[in-house]
Amino acid sequence: MKQTKTVSELADHLGGVVEGDPDILISGLGTLETAGPEAITFLANPKYAAKVEQTSAGAVLMAPGGERFGHTAILVDNPYLAFAKLLTLFYTSTHEALGIMPGANVSDSAVIAEGTTIYPGACIGKNVKIGSRSVIYPGVAIYENAVIGDDCTLHANSVVRERCRIGNRCILQPGAVIGSDGFGYAPDGNGYYPIPQIGIVILEDDVEIGANSCVDRAAIEVTRIGRGTKLDNLVQVAHNCKIGEQCMIVSQVGISGSTTVGNHVTLAGQVGVAGHITIGDNVLVGGQSGVASSLPGNASYSGSPTIPHKEWLKSSMVFPRLPEIKKTVASLEKRIAELENRLNQISKEN
Amino acid sequence: MKQTKTVSELADHLGGVVEGDPDILISGLGTLETAGPEAITFLANPKYAAKVEQTSAGAVLMAPGGERFGHTAILVDNPYLAFAKLLTLFYTSTHEALGIMPGANVSDSAVIAEGTTIYPGACIGKNVKIGSRSVIYPGVAIYENAVIGDDCTLHANSVVRERCRIGNRCILQPGAVIGSDGFGYAPDGNGYYPIPQIGIVILEDDVEIGANSCVDRAAIEVTRIGRGTKLDNLVQVAHNCKIGEQCMIVSQVGISGSTTVGNHVTLAGQVGVAGHITIGDNVLVGGQSGVASSLPGNASYSGSPTIPHKEWLKSSMVFPRLPEIKKTVASLEKRIAELENRLNQISKEN
Amino acid sequence: MKQTKTVSELADHLGGVVEGDPDILISGLGTLETAGPEAITFLANPKYAAKVEQTSAGAVLMAPGGERFGHTAILVDNPYLAFAKLLTLFYTSTHEALGIMPGANVSDSAVIAEGTTIYPGACIGKNVKIGSRSVIYPGVAIYENAVIGDDCTLHANSVVRERCRIGNRCILQPGAVIGSDGFGYAPDGNGYYPIPQIGIVILEDDVEIGANSCVDRAAIEVTRIGRGTKLDNLVQVAHNCKIGEQCMIVSQVGISGSTTVGNHVTLAGQVGVAGHITIGDNVLVGGQSGVASSLPGNASYSGSPTIPHKEWLKSSMVFPRLPEIKKTVASLEKRIAELENRLNQISKEN
Repeated sequence: MKQTKTVSELADHLGGVVEGDPDILISGLGTLETAGPEAITFLANPKYAAKVEQTSAGAVLMAPGGERFGHTAILVDNPYLAFAKLLTLFYTSTHEALGIMPGANVSDSAVIAEGTTIYPGACIGKNVKIGSRSVIYPGVAIYENAVIGDDCTLHANSVVRERCRIGNRCILQPGAVIGSDGFGYAPDGNGYYPIPQIGIVILEDDVEIGANSCVDRAAIEVTRIGRGTKLDNLVQVAHNCKIGEQCMIVSQVGISGSTTVGNHVTLAGQVGVAGHITIGDNVLVGGQSGVASSLPGNASYSGSPTIPHKEWLKSSMVFPRLPEIKKTVASLEKRIAELENRLNQISKEN
Repeated sequence: MKQTKTVSELADHLGGVVEGDPDILISGLGTLETAGPEAITFLANPKYAAKVEQTSAGAVLMAPGGERFGHTAILVDNPYLAFAKLLTLFYTSTHEALGIMPGANVSDSAVIAEGTTIYPGACIGKNVKIGSRSVIYPGVAIYENAVIGDDCTLHANSVVRERCRIGNRCILQPGAVIGSDGFGYAPDGNGYYPIPQIGIVILEDDVEIGANSCVDRAAIEVTRIGRGTKLDNLVQVAHNCKIGEQCMIVSQVGISGSTTVGNHVTLAGQVGVAGHITIGDNVLVGGQSGVASSLPGNASYSGSPTIPHKEWLKSSMVFPRLPEIKKTVASLEKRIAELENRLNQISKEN
Repeated sequence: MKQTKTVSELADHLGGVVEGDPDILISGLGTLETAGPEAITFLANPKYAAKVEQTSAGAVLMAPGGERFGHTAILVDNPYLAFAKLLTLFYTSTHEALGIMPGANVSDSAVIAEGTTIYPGACIGKNVKIGSRSVIYPGVAIYENAVIGDDCTLHANSVVRERCRIGNRCILQPGAVIGSDGFGYAPDGNGYYPIPQIGIVILEDDVEIGANSCVDRAAIEVTRIGRGTKLDNLVQVAHNCKIGEQCMIVSQVGISGSTTVGNHVTLAGQVGVAGHITIGDNVLVGGQSGVASSLPGNASYSGSPTIPHKEWLKSSMVFPRLPEIKKTVASLEKRIAELENRLNQISKEN
């Protein structure tokens, strides 16, 4: 995995411009504090600009116009993105195709494309289709008639239930569950009659599902996660939800049934969302908020129930002063009563 | 799985009454919007009554007295329940008994009843008992001396630890964990001494546990989930809890140790419940609420800490106006001081 | 497992002092209510002191100075800890070493120490090292180059990803995930470019991770859980966090990326912690709180955002009275306006 590149080669790879010595050899990456002379680092946040002066890094990724303090720099529009791309270049590699390994349980009717690895302990059901170059780790269970796209990674003990469809380049972290039964019951007087959950889940391309997160299958149609959307760990998406494209759903968020979430939405950690509502595009919801009704797009919200984020900040600042306010109101009440008495007295006297 | 029934046959199945043509052939189900002429739909919520006029469905399930707009109808007391029963009729089937499949690891001392399926990758420990017609999916681990009832479904990678007892017709969604060690430690001055958790979990009949939910074993006795209670995904039930019958515990709820929950209780999503308290029968707790002390039955609560739901609604409406209230109080204070001054002036003058 | 000891032997084991009959035979443990004459019980909380009178237990663990009501007692400084130690003595046993069992998948290059058990269905990757007397339950997946210490217990379907390091005497409850990819993406204009998460997780000695909890690997360095720290079920620890020693992280807590938590910190259930902040030593955070910024040590906090716990309690008591306060303020406003009018009238008249 260890390789060495010149600054010039890295600049070509990134579409960046070298300032300084293009021939410096780079064999790794580090932070401004930890990178040594054979490593490249990056400056993304201007507030750390002064740290560039002290860095021992061999080269620095920075935006055009930054002060390089005599260091060699590669100028790129998005230094953070460039750093991520170099991490990929230096530290990752395509998984070697190992085929169906001994100890894997694969149904005879499953169709497994070329370049795929299926580890021991994985179980692939009837009529499952798995695309090219996908990697299925130990303990993964794929139920009958499910479809997995190309270049997917299903980490250990993740589960895809019957008929669900996973797009290309999707990643399931360990323990992720796709297609568990939606939580639907019809009260029958005595208790709850379970409503068969006969729908499916569709993950579009480039979706990532975090460790131990759950996406329930629809009651009769489709629970859908849009292209490029990322779910962090321990997230719950209930049946019939439609999540848009390029959303960031942070850890421990829960989204109730039949809710629609637009594109480019960020739900911060532990947010709860009610069922049967709609969240508009480009919405940002602050951590632990409770979304009880539909939210118009292009705005930020916080609180439980949610209100515009700035208003929530202001009200939250007042919350710790409630005891004082209560006391003040009570004292004002007394002072007013006294004023009224005195004024009545004066009126009478006049 | 595909089958066709007459409206008359369906009415018999449901105990309903046909209005219109009893001989229409039905082969599936759909919503008022999506059902075609060979499908049956339902009207449960009167606010959608007008949609019946436009539906293309071959027949409609509705309550007696509804307007059927010339469509054939089956009159039933609970159209939603009837729809669920027809979903079961048309779209589900009993799992074929496949026995102990190759690749399953079953201890010689385990007792497996007839009609059961144990998929490859499942591991069944010593002296485990599994009832008739139960289905054990890949990757399920059942530890020694556990007991599983009849007609259970244990989905992939669910775990039942030693000596725990699962009733009849229970369902574990993928990744559910029954009998993990309770979180109990005795501080010993330096750190925490782990208290052996030697109790068990009992799931009574007809309990369902959602994907990746956890029910901890009791310290020395029993953590119990009552008959017919349903847990959604990612729910935590700590050691020694007693959950009553026919409860609905929605996703991401957490219940702390030694708490007792009555019958017919609904805890909405992300509710947290403190330890060593009691929640009465027929309680409804709103989403994200924090139950810090015992709650009398037959009432609704919200907030953290919880208060009666209606009071919480009212206080929540005031919360966004706190900055304004604070400002008003400050200005009132000034105006009162001014009034007092003026009145003192007048008093002096008189 | 069943064994019998005299009170005198138990006192020796605990370093306690017998009052009463040292020869009573004890073969089990129970609560003050449930223990019979062959069982020992304990009194830890003085408020239950009166229950000692009625207990049928053969002996009672209690602190010096307690009233034993004629029962035989073992006096110890910490009766709760002593009880836990006797639970260990009576009810637990070292797991018998079963070696690599048939149906386990162990890479040829893995190094497995003596006295270890690897159950069927477990998968051990290349170059993995597992220490002495560790127990690896069914369905556990350990990725390549991971290291597991001595005397560890990895329960069914837990996962340790590549290169992560687990100390000695660590416990992973079922479904726990160590080393899932951190949630890191660089926006690239269209969507999100995944940042390779090339770091690892280190669990120091005596760490316990609850069922279905997740600890993400660092982006480029280490996510660390300190010695003796216990995580309950369904906890999320994001990438690059440093959690100190002897912390108690209760169920469903979520800690965002790059946050540092001190030693002896307790985070109660469902607490959320923002990223890139620091929580000091000996902090206690109340259930469901939201820690939005760094917290100084040696204090208790609650609320979302957190404030000192006592202030939060007071403000929470006022919250239900907000509608009344709002009403009062409005009425005060009217009364003041009226006073002002009357006073203006008087001034004019004078």
